[in-house]
Amino acid sequence: MWQLYQFPLCPFSRKVRLLLGEKGVGYEPVRESPWQRRDEFLDLNPTGQVPVMVDSERGVTLIDSSVICEFFEETVTKSPMLNGTAPDRAEIRRLVIWFDTYFYRDITAPLLNERMLKRLVYRQAPDGQALRGAMKAAVEYLDYIDYLLDHRTWLAGPMMSLADLAAAAQISVADYLGGIDWKSHEQAKRWYIGMKSRPSFRNLLTERMDGIAPPADYEKLDL
Amino acid sequence: MWQLYQFPLCPFSRKVRLLLGEKGVGYEPVRESPWQRRDEFLDLNPTGQVPVMVDSERGVTLIDSSVICEFFEETVTKSPMLNGTAPDRAEIRRLVIWFDTYFYRDITAPLLNERMLKRLVYRQAPDGQALRGAMKAAVEYLDYIDYLLDHRTWLAGPMMSLADLAAAAQISVADYLGGIDWKSHEQAKRWYIGMKSRPSFRNLLTERMDGIAPPADYEKLDL
Repeated sequence: MWQLYQFPLCPFSRKVRLLLGEKGVGYEPVRESPWQRRDEFLDLNPTGQVPVMVDSERGVTLIDSSVICEFFEETVTKSPMLNGTAPDRAEIRRLVIWFDTYFYRDITAPLLNERMLKRLVYRQAPDGQALRGAMKAAVEYLDYIDYLLDHRTWLAGPMMSLADLAAAAQISVADYLGGIDWKSHEQAKRWYIGMKSRPSFRNLLTERMDGIAPPADYEKLDL
Repeated sequence: MWQLYQFPLCPFSRKVRLLLGEKGVGYEPVRESPWQRRDEFLDLNPTGQVPVMVDSERGVTLIDSSVICEFFEETVTKSPMLNGTAPDRAEIRRLVIWFDTYFYRDITAPLLNERMLKRLVYRQAPDGQALRGAMKAAVEYLDYIDYLLDHRTWLAGPMMSLADLAAAAQISVADYLGGIDWKSHEQAKRWYIGMKSRPSFRNLLTERMDGIAPPADYEKLDL
């Protein structure tokens, strides 16, 4: 049985959990708070980051969400999430990196810092300017999602792919932390409601981070 | 013919160029200085980062070094650089991310900022503390390379892989900028000399960045 080291608001762990859910791979979630820098966890992954997956029976450790996703894409044929020709796959991977790197840097990371870490770890008030910057950036990213969906059924093309999972994972954490305003983003909103209605997503949405409540419509399917 | 947008000291472009060299893929290098944020290049890649590869005849654009490497690994069978079983491939990808993300963050990025950007763009003197921090971090990373090579012929296992190319790319830029001291890193030094002697690497080592000279032994095969 795979163990997945993660915490509820980690967007990269959410991407992995969505993929495992779509592929029907069973796993035991193990709660890990990377900011505690626990010695046993640092032995597993010296960078101290989640997600990490371990299959102790087979002696396999997978470190980093992109490594984990490529591994299960290669080993589990059900619900392929890197579909199509080599250029199609390049477009999927480009968008995954775009969400994992840039959306995370501009939106998810500042929201996690201001609304989660400052509350749970540093015991500081959030910085209003950083929050406003993240929410302003979110509007631009939603504009780009609208643009993609003007031309495509799913973010990277005609089929659901890892790009949709990566995007939904980042957006769901930003949404939990009150960083997403769906107003005048009809295309993106409809796509996101579709993602939310998937069984792989329903479980994630019922989880809560200690002491931090999501907005009232976080779980709802009619935004 | 592929065009590769890059500049001589970009470690991610170097990783791609090493892969293309090993695989025998021809390309035309196009000089791009991402800090100039040229409009035509931003149209190609809105994040403004190199490397980007374009095949205008086939209408294919590849953005981000990891996307490019996966693309050529999938489409060119010569000299596979993601060899072995799924766990072997996961280990290669883990190390690629380790060099691309953490070595870059701790060593290559501060060196590029202090010794290239401050000279060419900001016209400022380098910050000695940042330089000392990068060089201190380099010692720890070389220790880890020594450790890997105690157990393996190449960084990720018994065969040369993308992990070796990613590592050599980052190290070569850090070395150009005077950030690497090989003293008491015999294992790593021997591995790096082996990398330097490959035809795919020789071309890179003869290139120079305008106004920035590398140390005397930068190209040498007897360090």
